[in-house]
Amino acid sequence: MWTRLLDDLVGAVVKTGTLTLPDGTVLRHGDGGAPQVGLILKDPALPGRLVRDPELALGEAYMDGTLEIADDALEDFFRLMTVNTNTSYGTGWFRLIDRAQRVLRFLDTHNPVGRAQRNVAHHYDLSGDLYDLFLDADRQYSCAYWGPGVRTLEEAQAAKKHHIATKLCLEPGMRVLDVGCGWGGLALTLAQDYGVQVTGVTLSTEQHATARARVRAAGLEDRVDIRLTDYRNVEDRFDRIVSVGMFEHVGPLHYREYFTTLHRLLDADGVALVHTIGRLARTRPTSPWITRHIFPGGYIPALSEITGAVERADLLPADLEVLHTHYADTLRAWYDRFMARADKAEALYDARFVRMWRYYLLASEAAFRHGRQVVFQVQLTRAMARVPMTRDYLYPSAGRARLAAE
Amino acid sequence: MWTRLLDDLVGAVVKTGTLTLPDGTVLRHGDGGAPQVGLILKDPALPGRLVRDPELALGEAYMDGTLEIADDALEDFFRLMTVNTNTSYGTGWFRLIDRAQRVLRFLDTHNPVGRAQRNVAHHYDLSGDLYDLFLDADRQYSCAYWGPGVRTLEEAQAAKKHHIATKLCLEPGMRVLDVGCGWGGLALTLAQDYGVQVTGVTLSTEQHATARARVRAAGLEDRVDIRLTDYRNVEDRFDRIVSVGMFEHVGPLHYREYFTTLHRLLDADGVALVHTIGRLARTRPTSPWITRHIFPGGYIPALSEITGAVERADLLPADLEVLHTHYADTLRAWYDRFMARADKAEALYDARFVRMWRYYLLASEAAFRHGRQVVFQVQLTRAMARVPMTRDYLYPSAGRARLAAE
Repeated sequence: MWTRLLDDLVGAVVKTGTLTLPDGTVLRHGDGGAPQVGLILKDPALPGRLVRDPELALGEAYMDGTLEIADDALEDFFRLMTVNTNTSYGTGWFRLIDRAQRVLRFLDTHNPVGRAQRNVAHHYDLSGDLYDLFLDADRQYSCAYWGPGVRTLEEAQAAKKHHIATKLCLEPGMRVLDVGCGWGGLALTLAQDYGVQVTGVTLSTEQHATARARVRAAGLEDRVDIRLTDYRNVEDRFDRIVSVGMFEHVGPLHYREYFTTLHRLLDADGVALVHTIGRLARTRPTSPWITRHIFPGGYIPALSEITGAVERADLLPADLEVLHTHYADTLRAWYDRFMARADKAEALYDARFVRMWRYYLLASEAAFRHGRQVVFQVQLTRAMARVPMTRDYLYPSAGRARLAAE
Repeated sequence: MWTRLLDDLVGAVVKTGTLTLPDGTVLRHGDGGAPQVGLILKDPALPGRLVRDPELALGEAYMDGTLEIADDALEDFFRLMTVNTNTSYGTGWFRLIDRAQRVLRFLDTHNPVGRAQRNVAHHYDLSGDLYDLFLDADRQYSCAYWGPGVRTLEEAQAAKKHHIATKLCLEPGMRVLDVGCGWGGLALTLAQDYGVQVTGVTLSTEQHATARARVRAAGLEDRVDIRLTDYRNVEDRFDRIVSVGMFEHVGPLHYREYFTTLHRLLDADGVALVHTIGRLARTRPTSPWITRHIFPGGYIPALSEITGAVERADLLPADLEVLHTHYADTLRAWYDRFMARADKAEALYDARFVRMWRYYLLASEAAFRHGRQVVFQVQLTRAMARVPMTRDYLYPSAGRARLAAE
């Protein structure tokens, strides 16, 4: 029975490409074009689980090794799934199940102060050695900026930090708050290259320890203060606020609280920059496999969810950049580095962890390359006059590159 | 009684600046700072009307000449009003009245095909001679773009058209739809300078006749087609769609219909650009005086209203620029030209019309200069890959200007 239902489900979803079962039965011919992907199911209970909760079961079966992709064509598999679920999750019964599960998962993004800390620990307190396997030396764990002339991951991450710093309209001596400061890379750069005072907050004990050690090593204790605390507990006021790759962990039930807190912490003529993954479609919510195994409590916002919360908090949106492809290229760079050192990751954890991480990096790349997932950079202010009248200040090198080519 | 209530209302609203009655009674000392404005009320019924519907009554009394501003300081008056109503419309009873009126006015923005035509005629079928008094020769009746090096209104309007054309990512031979084409200036420029085929639609018979005559005069009948029709009646498909200063007339009850229609008219890898006035705050709705006397059926959207409708229509937002101050400077240029030729406007209509137009231009300038009113340029696409990965392509001259200065 489950195999027939699985056939129905795949038939409802896959319109482009071909998905086949290992016995040679063609589960679904879409338009017959690429990609062509074969599934190898090694557990008789799997069709049932796949019908009841497809995305979660797929990822877990891959982790467990009960699902394999023929010829190890995991990338083709993700492309097939992403292209076919961009606008719809199928019809009828399957759609109903999908909607019900989304409501439950929405409610699961309640992240009060204590729970937020536990959710953060799940991912960011993993061994620093793991992150060193695939991130750049500065440990920038967010979308890089592949601007003109950028070739390497290191250059792209440096360009990202500079792009964000420019949008903050910094002046030497300003007090800057970095909400979700990670291992301190951005805070150090802002203090060193832009002459500002930075307070960074994180909920990860691993990140906090590493960031503080880096600040000491750089001799910047007088200019960079890293705190292990929830941003909602901060009491000071800042000229500028930056928040990179943290909003994904806030959860829609807390969006208003997030922006209201930013408003409270921001000076009356302050500027803020929020850099977050976003989704362009109302369908295609945050993957349940991702929220269970990678980012508990995570939720990828639609633009309307952000703008509504920003307006209610009385913050003024000054600019919105939508970065497409940049995160796909970033994840590809991470994936290549990770796979080149997969043996080291297996030594740190185990083979199941390596499969999980591979699935995570490739599924995410597909969502950014073929899906409706992007990065939003939202520039906010409490006084529009603080932001230049045109965006030329962000692109001083564009004309320069042109001149060089002429 | 009404005078005392008016005193209460002004007390609830005016926190900054000073507003006085003509007998010398200080109606309200805010913080006592500038601006200081005196009101001269020449009709005993006026306090009552001002309490019941302040914005509408103010504008109408000024038009009728029963309200004057001491020393003719209309600009100071608008600055005072705008600064004090940016975040709140007062408290208690006045707030309740204000909310109720907003609901009624929201419902009044129902603009089906026939009514939309009548609303357009009210404003845009005014004599072309009137518009020639204050617009540039190309009759660009929307926010200009005061980019680097721009000095005159003519240059700023040309820069606006070029900025929009660049965002459309045009290639010669493409089919472009201009929704709300006005007197045809943008359509002519796109055909002449960018080599595209343009279909322009307007509901104004005056604009339609003028635009067609200009197309004939330019010998561009084979490349520019101006139609007198509602955009919802268009049946073709286009590579690109542009809509400048038209969305303000759509009304929130039709936002979803608007973007769904754009989606239907746009090629599968098309790009669109919507240029519209917007508001950054949830308070401060479209002025009731403006919707009665200047733009019936008009409604200024909040960003969340736009993004929500865009998502539901399955269009992908690729970029959002927020232009602040640009429209204030545009309106100031229009105002200066209009006042220099006020005698001609009075000869075309009458003194009441001149007072109405002056009130309209100055109130609008204040909303953009001191208030929460801006212009949104929303770049939309059906395929993100059609839009460049970074926005450098929009700013090729920024680096050039820098080099020249070095």
